[in-house]
Amino acid sequence: MKLTKQGRGGIDALGPAPVVVLCRPQLGENVGTAARAMLNFGLGELRLVEPRFGWPNAKAVAACSGAHEVLNRMAIFDSVEAAIADLHHVYATTARFREMRKPLLTAEAAGVEARSMIAAERRVGILFGRERTGLDNDELALADALVRVPINPEFASLNLAQAVLLVGYEWFKSGDSTPQHQDLAEAETPATKGDLDGMLHHLVTELEAVAFFRSHDSRDSIVRTVKMMFERRAMTQPEVHLMRGIVKELRRGPDKTGRGANETEVADG
Amino acid sequence: MKLTKQGRGGIDALGPAPVVVLCRPQLGENVGTAARAMLNFGLGELRLVEPRFGWPNAKAVAACSGAHEVLNRMAIFDSVEAAIADLHHVYATTARFREMRKPLLTAEAAGVEARSMIAAERRVGILFGRERTGLDNDELALADALVRVPINPEFASLNLAQAVLLVGYEWFKSGDSTPQHQDLAEAETPATKGDLDGMLHHLVTELEAVAFFRSHDSRDSIVRTVKMMFERRAMTQPEVHLMRGIVKELRRGPDKTGRGANETEVADG
Repeated sequence: MKLTKQGRGGIDALGPAPVVVLCRPQLGENVGTAARAMLNFGLGELRLVEPRFGWPNAKAVAACSGAHEVLNRMAIFDSVEAAIADLHHVYATTARFREMRKPLLTAEAAGVEARSMIAAERRVGILFGRERTGLDNDELALADALVRVPINPEFASLNLAQAVLLVGYEWFKSGDSTPQHQDLAEAETPATKGDLDGMLHHLVTELEAVAFFRSHDSRDSIVRTVKMMFERRAMTQPEVHLMRGIVKELRRGPDKTGRGANETEVADG
Repeated sequence: MKLTKQGRGGIDALGPAPVVVLCRPQLGENVGTAARAMLNFGLGELRLVEPRFGWPNAKAVAACSGAHEVLNRMAIFDSVEAAIADLHHVYATTARFREMRKPLLTAEAAGVEARSMIAAERRVGILFGRERTGLDNDELALADALVRVPINPEFASLNLAQAVLLVGYEWFKSGDSTPQHQDLAEAETPATKGDLDGMLHHLVTELEAVAFFRSHDSRDSIVRTVKMMFERRAMTQPEVHLMRGIVKELRRGPDKTGRGANETEVADG
Protein backbone atom coordinates (compact mmCIF):
# COMPACT_ATOMS: atom_id res chain seq x y z
CA MET A 1 0.00 0.00 0.00
CA LYS A 2 1.11 3.59 0.35
CA LEU A 3 4.39 4.53 1.91
CA THR A 4 4.03 7.17 4.60
CA LYS A 5 6.85 8.84 6.51
CA GLN A 6 6.87 8.58 10.24
CA GLY A 7 5.66 11.77 11.92
CA ARG A 8 7.53 13.80 14.46
CA GLY A 9 5.67 12.29 17.39
CA GLY A 10 7.47 8.99 16.85
CA ILE A 11 7.13 6.04 19.19
CA ASP A 12 6.45 8.08 22.33
CA ALA A 13 3.32 9.53 20.79
CA LEU A 14 1.89 6.02 20.40
CA GLY A 15 1.25 5.59 24.11
CA PRO A 16 2.04 2.56 26.28
CA ALA A 17 1.90 -0.75 24.41
CA PRO A 18 3.07 -4.35 24.82
CA VAL A 19 6.80 -5.12 24.63
CA VAL A 20 7.75 -7.53 21.82
CA VAL A 21 10.35 -10.15 22.81
CA LEU A 22 11.97 -12.17 19.99
CA CYS A 23 13.54 -15.32 21.47
CA ARG A 24 16.73 -16.51 19.74
CA PRO A 25 15.99 -15.20 16.22
CA GLN A 26 18.30 -16.59 13.56
CA LEU A 27 18.20 -13.92 10.83
CA GLY A 28 18.86 -10.20 11.25
CA GLU A 29 16.54 -9.49 8.34
CA ASN A 30 13.60 -10.85 10.34
CA VAL A 31 14.32 -8.43 13.16
CA GLY A 32 14.09 -5.57 10.64
CA THR A 33 10.79 -6.75 9.14
CA ALA A 34 9.42 -7.41 12.65
CA ALA A 35 10.37 -3.83 13.68
CA ARG A 36 8.51 -2.49 10.64
CA ALA A 37 5.41 -4.59 11.46
CA MET A 38 5.56 -3.36 15.05
CA LEU A 39 5.60 0.30 14.07
CA ASN A 40 2.70 -0.30 11.63
CA PHE A 41 0.59 -1.11 14.65
CA GLY A 42 1.92 1.17 17.35
CA LEU A 43 4.36 -1.17 19.08
CA GLY A 44 7.64 0.60 19.87
CA GLU A 45 9.57 -1.54 22.34
CA LEU A 46 11.54 -4.49 20.99
CA ARG A 47 13.77 -6.90 22.95
CA LEU A 48 15.95 -9.71 21.60
CA VAL A 49 17.04 -12.77 23.56
CA GLU A 50 20.29 -14.39 22.40
CA PRO A 51 20.16 -13.42 18.72
CA ARG A 52 22.09 -15.81 16.45
CA PHE A 53 23.77 -12.87 14.64
CA GLY A 54 25.89 -9.87 15.58
CA TRP A 55 24.45 -6.49 16.47
CA PRO A 56 24.27 -3.87 14.97
CA ASN A 57 23.15 -5.79 11.88
CA ALA A 58 23.09 -4.27 8.38
CA LYS A 59 20.42 -6.69 7.12
CA ALA A 60 18.07 -5.75 9.96
CA VAL A 61 18.51 -2.05 9.19
CA ALA A 62 17.97 -2.62 5.45
CA ALA A 63 14.79 -4.62 6.09
CA CYS A 64 13.13 -2.24 8.57
CA SER A 65 11.79 0.12 5.84
CA GLY A 66 12.24 3.21 7.98
CA ALA A 67 11.35 1.80 11.41
CA HIS A 68 14.80 2.85 12.66
CA GLU A 69 13.45 4.23 15.91
CA VAL A 70 12.35 0.73 16.97
CA LEU A 71 15.79 -0.74 16.19
CA ASN A 72 17.64 2.14 17.86
CA ARG A 73 15.79 1.55 21.13
CA MET A 74 16.02 -2.22 20.99
CA ALA A 75 17.60 -4.03 23.96
CA ILE A 76 19.38 -7.42 23.93
CA PHE A 77 19.19 -9.95 26.80
CA ASP A 78 20.98 -13.18 27.73
CA SER A 79 17.84 -15.03 28.81
CA VAL A 80 14.07 -14.86 28.44
CA GLU A 81 13.82 -14.50 32.23
CA ALA A 82 15.95 -11.34 32.12
CA ALA A 83 14.00 -9.94 29.15
CA ILE A 84 10.66 -10.22 30.97
CA ALA A 85 11.79 -9.49 34.55
CA ASP A 86 10.10 -6.04 34.67
CA LEU A 87 6.82 -7.19 33.06
CA HIS A 88 3.60 -8.09 34.87
CA HIS A 89 1.87 -10.22 32.22
CA VAL A 90 3.50 -12.19 29.41
CA TYR A 91 1.88 -13.86 26.39
CA ALA A 92 3.63 -16.58 24.38
CA THR A 93 2.67 -17.03 20.73
CA THR A 94 2.26 -20.58 19.45
CA ALA A 95 1.05 -22.17 16.23
CA ARG A 96 0.40 -25.58 17.71
CA PHE A 97 -2.33 -26.62 20.09
CA ARG A 98 -0.46 -27.30 23.31
CA GLU A 99 -1.51 -29.46 26.21
CA MET A 100 -0.49 -26.85 28.75
CA ARG A 101 -2.29 -25.71 31.85
CA LYS A 102 -2.36 -22.11 30.67
CA PRO A 103 -5.10 -19.95 29.21
CA LEU A 104 -5.08 -20.07 25.39
CA LEU A 105 -6.35 -16.90 23.67
CA THR A 106 -6.88 -15.86 20.07
CA ALA A 107 -4.79 -12.86 18.98
CA GLU A 108 -7.98 -10.79 18.99
CA ALA A 109 -8.85 -11.70 22.60
CA ALA A 110 -5.24 -11.08 23.67
CA GLY A 111 -5.31 -7.61 22.06
CA VAL A 112 -8.41 -6.67 24.01
CA GLU A 113 -7.10 -8.16 27.29
CA ALA A 114 -3.65 -6.53 26.92
CA ARG A 115 -5.26 -3.14 26.37
CA SER A 116 -7.28 -3.37 29.58
CA MET A 117 -4.18 -4.50 31.50
CA ILE A 118 -2.11 -1.62 30.13
CA ALA A 119 -4.91 0.80 31.02
CA ALA A 120 -4.48 -0.51 34.59
CA GLU A 121 -0.75 0.31 34.34
CA ARG A 122 0.46 -3.28 34.03
CA ARG A 123 3.46 -3.88 31.77
CA VAL A 124 2.68 -6.51 29.15
CA GLY A 125 4.99 -8.52 26.88
CA ILE A 126 4.54 -10.89 23.94
CA LEU A 127 7.09 -13.66 23.25
CA PHE A 128 7.82 -14.88 19.71
CA GLY A 129 9.96 -17.95 19.06
CA ARG A 130 12.75 -18.70 16.62
CA GLU A 131 11.92 -18.91 12.91
CA ARG A 132 11.51 -22.65 12.25
CA THR A 133 10.51 -24.14 15.57
CA GLY A 134 8.83 -21.40 17.60
CA LEU A 135 9.06 -21.25 21.38
CA ASP A 136 10.20 -24.39 23.22
CA ASN A 137 8.36 -25.73 26.27
CA ASP A 138 10.71 -24.03 28.78
CA GLU A 139 10.07 -20.67 27.12
CA LEU A 140 6.30 -21.25 26.98
CA ALA A 141 6.34 -22.14 30.67
CA LEU A 142 7.49 -18.58 31.49
CA ALA A 143 4.34 -17.04 30.04
CA ASP A 144 1.03 -16.39 31.76
CA ALA A 145 -1.03 -17.25 28.69
CA LEU A 146 -0.67 -18.61 25.16
CA VAL A 147 -1.78 -16.74 22.04
CA ARG A 148 -2.62 -18.27 18.68
CA VAL A 149 -3.66 -16.85 15.32
CA PRO A 150 -6.64 -18.59 13.65
CA ILE A 151 -5.12 -20.00 10.44
CA ASN A 152 -5.66 -22.69 7.78
CA PRO A 153 -4.50 -25.81 9.70
CA GLU A 154 -3.32 -27.38 6.42
CA PHE A 155 -0.92 -24.47 5.75
CA ALA A 156 -0.07 -22.80 9.05
CA SER A 157 3.45 -21.56 8.25
CA LEU A 158 3.91 -17.86 9.11
CA ASN A 159 7.23 -16.05 9.04
CA LEU A 160 8.32 -14.16 12.15
CA ALA A 161 7.38 -10.69 10.85
CA GLN A 162 3.94 -11.92 9.77
CA ALA A 163 3.26 -13.37 13.23
CA VAL A 164 4.30 -10.02 14.76
CA LEU A 165 2.15 -8.22 12.15
CA LEU A 166 -1.03 -10.15 12.98
CA VAL A 167 -0.65 -9.93 16.76
CA GLY A 168 0.25 -6.23 16.45
CA TYR A 169 -2.74 -5.65 14.19
CA GLU A 170 -5.10 -7.06 16.81
CA TRP A 171 -3.47 -4.90 19.50
CA PHE A 172 -3.98 -1.78 17.34
CA LYS A 173 -7.56 -2.74 16.43
CA SER A 174 -8.51 -3.16 20.09
CA GLY A 175 -7.93 0.59 20.50
CA ASP A 176 -9.20 1.74 17.11
CA SER A 177 -12.48 3.61 17.00
CA THR A 178 -12.84 4.00 13.22
CA PRO A 179 -16.33 2.95 12.11
CA GLN A 180 -16.47 -0.50 10.50
CA HIS A 181 -18.58 0.78 7.61
CA GLN A 182 -18.76 4.30 6.19
CA ASP A 183 -20.50 5.58 3.11
CA LEU A 184 -19.67 9.03 1.83
CA ALA A 185 -22.56 8.83 -0.66
CA GLU A 186 -24.96 8.43 2.24
CA ALA A 187 -23.66 11.67 3.74
CA GLU A 188 -24.68 13.67 0.64
CA THR A 189 -28.05 15.42 0.34
CA PRO A 190 -30.48 12.76 -0.88
CA ALA A 191 -32.87 13.39 -3.80
CA THR A 192 -36.37 14.38 -2.69
CA LYS A 193 -39.41 12.37 -3.76
CA GLY A 194 -40.19 15.28 -6.06
CA ASP A 195 -36.74 15.10 -7.73
CA LEU A 196 -37.21 11.38 -8.37
CA ASP A 197 -40.80 11.77 -9.61
CA GLY A 198 -39.71 14.52 -12.00
CA MET A 199 -36.95 12.35 -13.42
CA LEU A 200 -39.25 9.35 -13.82
CA HIS A 201 -41.96 11.48 -15.45
CA HIS A 202 -39.40 12.81 -17.92
CA LEU A 203 -38.15 9.31 -18.72
CA VAL A 204 -41.65 7.85 -19.12
CA THR A 205 -42.62 10.73 -21.45
CA GLU A 206 -39.61 10.00 -23.65
CA LEU A 207 -40.41 6.27 -23.63
CA GLU A 208 -43.98 6.94 -24.72
CA ALA A 209 -42.60 9.10 -27.54
CA VAL A 210 -40.65 6.09 -28.84
CA ALA A 211 -43.54 3.61 -28.40
CA PHE A 212 -41.62 1.61 -25.79
CA PHE A 213 -44.74 0.34 -24.01
CA ARG A 214 -46.69 -2.45 -25.73
CA SER A 215 -49.78 -2.47 -23.47
CA HIS A 216 -51.14 -0.56 -20.48
CA ASP A 217 -50.40 -3.55 -18.20
CA SER A 218 -46.74 -3.88 -19.12
CA ARG A 219 -46.40 -0.07 -19.00
CA ASP A 220 -47.36 0.03 -15.31
CA SER A 221 -45.12 -2.93 -14.49
CA ILE A 222 -42.13 -1.45 -16.33
CA VAL A 223 -42.57 1.99 -14.77
CA ARG A 224 -42.71 0.36 -11.33
CA THR A 225 -39.50 -1.60 -12.06
CA VAL A 226 -37.70 1.51 -13.33
CA LYS A 227 -38.79 3.45 -10.24
CA MET A 228 -37.48 0.75 -7.90
CA MET A 229 -34.23 0.52 -9.83
CA PHE A 230 -33.51 4.18 -9.20
CA GLU A 231 -34.64 4.03 -5.59
CA ARG A 232 -32.20 1.25 -4.76
CA ARG A 233 -28.42 1.62 -4.74
CA ALA A 234 -27.20 -1.56 -6.46
CA MET A 235 -28.45 -2.70 -9.87
CA THR A 236 -29.48 -6.30 -10.71
CA GLN A 237 -28.93 -8.12 -13.99
CA PRO A 238 -32.62 -7.82 -15.08
CA GLU A 239 -32.38 -4.07 -14.39
CA VAL A 240 -29.32 -3.87 -16.62
CA HIS A 241 -31.25 -5.70 -19.39
CA LEU A 242 -34.21 -3.37 -18.96
CA MET A 243 -31.97 -0.31 -19.10
CA ARG A 244 -30.41 -1.64 -22.29
CA GLY A 245 -33.87 -2.09 -23.84
CA ILE A 246 -34.76 1.47 -22.93
CA VAL A 247 -31.61 2.91 -24.46
CA LYS A 248 -31.96 0.77 -27.60
CA GLU A 249 -35.52 1.91 -28.20
CA LEU A 250 -34.56 5.54 -27.62
CA ARG A 251 -31.79 5.23 -30.17
CA ARG A 252 -33.91 3.48 -32.85
CA GLY A 253 -36.61 6.14 -32.64
CA PRO A 254 -40.44 6.04 -32.79
CA ASP A 255 -41.14 4.33 -36.16
CA LYS A 256 -38.55 1.49 -35.91
CA THR A 257 -37.13 2.46 -39.32
CA GLY A 258 -33.94 3.89 -37.88
CA ARG A 259 -34.85 7.52 -38.58
CA GLY A 260 -33.13 8.55 -35.32
CA ALA A 261 -34.19 9.61 -31.86
CA ASN A 262 -33.85 13.33 -32.42
CA GLU A 263 -37.14 13.59 -34.30
CA THR A 264 -40.08 14.85 -32.30
CA GLU A 265 -42.90 12.94 -34.03
CA VAL A 266 -45.19 11.26 -31.48
CA ALA A 267 -46.15 7.62 -31.96
CA ASP A 268 -49.61 6.23 -31.21
CA GLY A 269 -49.82 3.63 -28.43
CA MET B 1 5.76 -20.11 13.78
CA LYS B 2 5.62 -23.79 12.89
CA LEU B 3 5.90 -25.07 9.36
CA THR B 4 3.08 -27.42 8.42
CA LYS B 5 2.73 -29.33 5.18
CA GLN B 6 -0.34 -28.80 3.10
CA GLY B 7 -2.82 -31.64 3.49
CA ARG B 8 -4.27 -33.74 0.72
CA GLY B 9 -7.49 -31.75 0.62
CA GLY B 10 -5.67 -28.79 -0.93
CA ILE B 11 -7.42 -25.68 -2.15
CA ASP B 12 -10.67 -27.38 -3.10
CA ALA B 13 -11.21 -28.51 0.49
CA LEU B 14 -11.17 -24.86 1.62
CA GLY B 15 -14.58 -24.09 0.12
CA PRO B 16 -15.58 -21.04 -1.92
CA ALA B 17 -13.65 -17.87 -1.04
CA PRO B 18 -12.92 -14.44 -2.51
CA VAL B 19 -10.71 -14.20 -5.61
CA VAL B 20 -7.52 -12.14 -5.09
CA VAL B 21 -6.65 -9.81 -8.01
CA LEU B 22 -3.17 -8.23 -8.01
CA CYS B 23 -3.18 -5.23 -10.34
CA ARG B 24 0.10 -4.59 -12.19
CA PRO B 25 2.50 -6.04 -9.60
CA GLN B 26 6.15 -5.15 -10.20
CA LEU B 27 8.04 -7.98 -8.50
CA GLY B 28 7.55 -11.72 -8.99
CA GLU B 29 8.68 -12.31 -5.42
CA ASN B 30 5.64 -10.45 -4.12
CA VAL B 31 3.33 -12.74 -6.06
CA GLY B 32 4.96 -15.71 -4.31
CA THR B 33 4.64 -14.22 -0.82
CA ALA B 34 1.06 -13.14 -1.58
CA ALA B 35 0.22 -16.72 -2.68
CA ARG B 36 1.62 -18.03 0.61
CA ALA B 37 -0.40 -15.48 2.63
CA MET B 38 -3.53 -16.46 0.67
CA LEU B 39 -3.16 -20.15 1.44
CA ASN B 40 -2.55 -19.35 5.14
CA PHE B 41 -6.08 -18.05 5.24
CA GLY B 42 -7.95 -20.28 2.85
CA LEU B 43 -7.82 -18.16 -0.30
CA GLY B 44 -7.00 -20.30 -3.35
CA GLU B 45 -7.80 -18.26 -6.46
CA LEU B 46 -5.22 -15.70 -7.62
CA ARG B 47 -5.40 -13.47 -10.72
CA LEU B 48 -2.76 -11.07 -12.03
CA VAL B 49 -3.44 -8.04 -14.22
CA GLU B 50 -0.55 -6.96 -16.46
CA PRO B 51 2.36 -8.15 -14.32
CA ARG B 52 5.61 -6.23 -14.89
CA PHE B 53 7.60 -9.47 -15.12
CA GLY B 54 7.55 -12.65 -17.20
CA TRP B 55 5.58 -15.76 -16.22
CA PRO B 56 6.41 -18.42 -15.05
CA ASN B 57 8.69 -16.60 -12.61
CA ALA B 58 11.40 -18.34 -10.58
CA LYS B 59 11.38 -15.69 -7.83
CA ALA B 60 7.64 -16.11 -7.31
CA VAL B 61 8.03 -19.88 -7.01
CA ALA B 62 10.97 -19.52 -4.57
CA ALA B 63 9.02 -17.07 -2.38
CA CYS B 64 5.75 -19.03 -2.16
CA SER B 65 7.05 -21.38 0.59
CA GLY B 66 5.06 -24.35 -0.67
CA ALA B 67 1.90 -22.59 -1.88
CA HIS B 68 2.51 -23.98 -5.38
CA GLU B 69 -1.11 -24.94 -5.85
CA VAL B 70 -2.12 -21.25 -5.75
CA LEU B 71 0.53 -20.30 -8.34
CA ASN B 72 -0.29 -23.28 -10.58
CA ARG B 73 -3.93 -22.21 -10.83
CA MET B 74 -3.20 -18.52 -11.20
CA ALA B 75 -4.62 -16.72 -14.26
CA ILE B 76 -3.22 -13.61 -16.00
CA PHE B 77 -5.41 -10.88 -17.55
CA ASP B 78 -4.84 -7.85 -19.79
CA SER B 79 -7.15 -5.55 -17.85
CA VAL B 80 -8.83 -5.23 -14.47
CA GLU B 81 -12.20 -5.30 -16.26
CA ALA B 82 -11.40 -8.71 -17.77
CA ALA B 83 -10.11 -10.04 -14.44
CA ILE B 84 -13.35 -9.20 -12.62
CA ALA B 85 -15.87 -9.82 -15.43
CA ASP B 86 -17.30 -12.99 -13.82
CA LEU B 87 -17.52 -11.54 -10.28
CA HIS B 88 -20.60 -10.10 -8.58
CA HIS B 89 -19.01 -7.96 -5.89
CA VAL B 90 -15.53 -6.43 -5.90
CA TYR B 91 -13.62 -4.78 -3.05
CA ALA B 92 -10.65 -2.47 -3.65
CA THR B 93 -8.01 -2.16 -0.93
CA THR B 94 -6.69 1.31 -0.17
CA ALA B 95 -4.39 2.79 2.46
CA ARG B 96 -5.55 6.36 1.97
CA PHE B 97 -8.83 7.90 2.92
CA ARG B 98 -10.50 8.57 -0.42
CA GLU B 99 -13.20 11.05 -1.22
CA MET B 100 -15.15 8.54 -3.25
CA ARG B 101 -18.86 7.87 -3.32
CA LYS B 102 -18.37 4.24 -2.36
CA PRO B 103 -18.84 2.36 0.88
CA LEU B 104 -15.59 2.20 2.90
CA LEU B 105 -15.23 -0.89 5.12
CA THR B 106 -12.61 -2.11 7.54
CA ALA B 107 -10.99 -5.42 6.59
CA GLU B 108 -12.94 -7.04 9.42
CA ALA B 109 -16.31 -5.77 8.16
CA ALA B 110 -15.41 -6.78 4.60
CA GLY B 111 -14.54 -10.32 5.77
CA VAL B 112 -17.94 -10.69 7.41
CA GLU B 113 -19.80 -9.16 4.45
CA ALA B 114 -17.91 -11.25 1.87
CA ARG B 115 -18.74 -14.43 3.77
CA SER B 116 -22.45 -13.70 3.75
CA MET B 117 -22.30 -12.86 0.03
CA ILE B 118 -20.44 -16.08 -0.78
CA ALA B 119 -22.96 -18.04 1.30
CA ALA B 120 -25.58 -16.54 -1.06
CA GLU B 121 -23.53 -17.86 -4.02
CA ARG B 122 -22.16 -14.50 -5.15
CA ARG B 123 -18.62 -14.46 -6.54
CA VAL B 124 -16.48 -11.95 -4.64
CA GLY B 125 -13.10 -10.43 -5.54
CA ILE B 126 -10.55 -8.24 -3.77
CA LEU B 127 -8.27 -5.89 -5.75
CA PHE B 128 -4.76 -5.04 -4.56
CA GLY B 129 -2.67 -2.32 -6.23
CA ARG B 130 0.95 -2.10 -7.33
CA GLU B 131 3.65 -2.08 -4.66
CA ARG B 132 4.47 1.62 -4.23
CA THR B 133 1.35 3.46 -5.28
CA GLY B 134 -1.60 1.13 -4.74
CA LEU B 135 -4.68 1.23 -6.97
CA ASP B 136 -5.22 4.31 -9.13
CA ASN B 137 -8.58 6.11 -9.32
CA ASP B 138 -9.67 4.28 -12.50
CA GLU B 139 -9.04 0.92 -10.82
CA LEU B 140 -10.83 1.99 -7.62
CA ALA B 141 -13.80 3.14 -9.70
CA LEU B 142 -14.35 -0.47 -10.84
CA ALA B 143 -14.99 -1.69 -7.30
CA ASP B 144 -18.26 -1.79 -5.38
CA ALA B 145 -16.63 -0.86 -2.08
CA LEU B 146 -13.28 0.16 -0.60
CA VAL B 147 -11.48 -1.75 2.15
CA ARG B 148 -8.87 -0.37 4.52
CA VAL B 149 -6.79 -1.87 7.31
CA PRO B 150 -6.70 0.10 10.58
CA ILE B 151 -3.04 1.08 10.92
CA ASN B 152 -0.73 3.61 12.60
CA PRO B 153 -1.30 6.69 10.40
CA GLU B 154 2.27 7.84 11.04
CA PHE B 155 3.71 4.60 9.58
CA ALA B 156 1.16 3.08 7.21
CA SER B 157 3.51 1.33 4.78
CA LEU B 158 2.54 -2.33 4.18
CA ASN B 159 4.08 -4.56 1.56
CA LEU B 160 1.80 -6.36 -0.89
CA ALA B 161 1.93 -9.76 0.85
CA GLN B 162 1.21 -8.17 4.23
CA ALA B 163 -1.87 -6.39 2.85
CA VAL B 164 -3.06 -9.72 1.40
CA LEU B 165 -2.23 -11.42 4.73
CA LEU B 166 -4.34 -9.03 6.83
CA VAL B 167 -7.34 -9.01 4.50
CA GLY B 168 -7.10 -12.82 4.17
CA TYR B 169 -6.85 -13.16 7.96
CA GLU B 170 -10.09 -11.26 8.44
CA TRP B 171 -11.77 -13.42 5.78
CA PHE B 172 -10.64 -16.59 7.60
CA LYS B 173 -11.62 -15.22 11.02
CA SER B 174 -15.16 -14.43 9.84
CA GLY B 175 -15.69 -18.18 9.41
CA ASP B 176 -13.64 -19.40 12.39
CA SER B 177 -15.51 -20.85 15.33
CA THR B 178 -12.58 -21.45 17.70
CA PRO B 179 -13.33 -20.03 21.15
CA GLN B 180 -11.60 -16.71 21.88
CA HIS B 181 -10.43 -17.94 25.28
CA GLN B 182 -9.78 -21.49 26.45
CA ASP B 183 -8.26 -22.76 29.68
CA LEU B 184 -7.22 -26.39 29.91
CA ALA B 185 -6.56 -26.00 33.66
CA GLU B 186 -10.20 -25.06 34.17
CA ALA B 187 -11.24 -28.34 32.58
CA GLU B 188 -9.38 -30.41 35.22
CA THR B 189 -11.07 -31.68 38.40
CA PRO B 190 -10.83 -28.85 40.95
CA ALA B 191 -9.61 -29.43 44.51
CA THR B 192 -12.42 -29.90 47.03
CA LYS B 193 -12.73 -27.65 50.10
CA GLY B 194 -11.53 -30.67 52.10
CA ASP B 195 -8.35 -31.02 49.98
CA LEU B 196 -7.56 -27.33 50.50
CA ASP B 197 -8.33 -27.41 54.24
CA GLY B 198 -6.10 -30.46 54.68
CA MET B 199 -3.19 -28.75 52.92
CA LEU B 200 -3.63 -25.54 54.93
CA HIS B 201 -3.87 -27.47 58.21
CA HIS B 202 -0.64 -29.29 57.34
CA LEU B 203 1.14 -26.04 56.47
CA VAL B 204 -0.08 -24.23 59.62
CA THR B 205 1.05 -27.17 61.81
CA GLU B 206 4.54 -26.98 60.28
CA LEU B 207 4.63 -23.20 60.74
CA GLU B 208 3.67 -23.54 64.41
CA ALA B 209 6.50 -26.07 64.78
CA VAL B 210 9.00 -23.44 63.59
CA ALA B 211 7.50 -20.60 65.69
CA PHE B 212 6.46 -18.66 62.61
CA PHE B 213 3.53 -16.91 64.35
CA ARG B 214 4.41 -14.06 66.72
CA SER B 215 0.94 -13.46 68.19
CA HIS B 216 -2.53 -14.96 67.95
CA ASP B 217 -3.72 -11.90 66.00
CA SER B 218 -1.06 -12.06 63.30
CA ARG B 219 -1.52 -15.86 63.18
CA ASP B 220 -5.17 -15.54 62.15
CA SER B 221 -4.35 -12.81 59.65
CA ILE B 222 -1.49 -14.76 58.09
CA VAL B 223 -3.52 -17.99 57.87
CA ARG B 224 -6.31 -16.04 56.16
CA THR B 225 -3.85 -14.54 53.66
CA VAL B 226 -2.26 -17.95 52.95
CA LYS B 227 -5.71 -19.46 52.43
CA MET B 228 -6.73 -16.74 49.94
CA MET B 229 -3.40 -17.05 48.13
CA PHE B 230 -4.05 -20.72 47.39
CA GLU B 231 -7.70 -20.15 46.52
CA ARG B 232 -6.83 -17.62 43.81
CA ARG B 233 -5.00 -18.47 40.58
CA ALA B 234 -2.51 -15.61 40.23
CA MET B 235 -0.08 -14.59 42.98
CA THR B 236 0.60 -10.97 44.02
CA GLN B 237 3.94 -9.52 45.08
CA PRO B 238 3.02 -9.44 48.82
CA GLU B 239 2.03 -13.11 48.54
CA VAL B 240 5.43 -13.89 47.04
CA HIS B 241 7.12 -12.08 49.98
CA LEU B 242 4.98 -13.98 52.46
CA MET B 243 5.78 -17.31 50.83
CA ARG B 244 9.47 -16.45 51.00
CA GLY B 245 9.17 -15.68 54.73
CA ILE B 246 7.46 -19.03 55.26
CA VAL B 247 10.15 -20.95 53.40
CA LYS B 248 12.96 -19.07 55.17
CA GLU B 249 11.58 -19.82 58.62
CA LEU B 250 11.08 -23.48 57.69
CA ARG B 251 14.67 -23.69 56.56
CA ARG B 252 16.18 -21.97 59.63
CA GLY B 253 14.34 -24.27 62.00
CA PRO B 254 12.56 -23.76 65.37
CA ASP B 255 15.33 -22.32 67.59
CA LYS B 256 16.79 -19.77 65.07
CA THR B 257 20.30 -21.20 65.57
CA GLY B 258 20.44 -22.79 62.15
CA ARG B 259 20.16 -26.35 63.49
CA GLY B 260 18.03 -27.28 60.43
CA ALA B 261 14.41 -27.91 59.71
CA ASN B 262 14.59 -31.69 59.94
CA GLU B 263 14.50 -31.73 63.75
CA THR B 264 11.12 -32.42 65.31
CA GLU B 265 11.43 -30.30 68.48
CA VAL B 266 8.31 -28.15 69.04
CA ALA B 267 8.70 -24.47 69.90
CA ASP B 268 6.52 -22.63 72.37
CA GLY B 269 4.34 -19.80 70.98
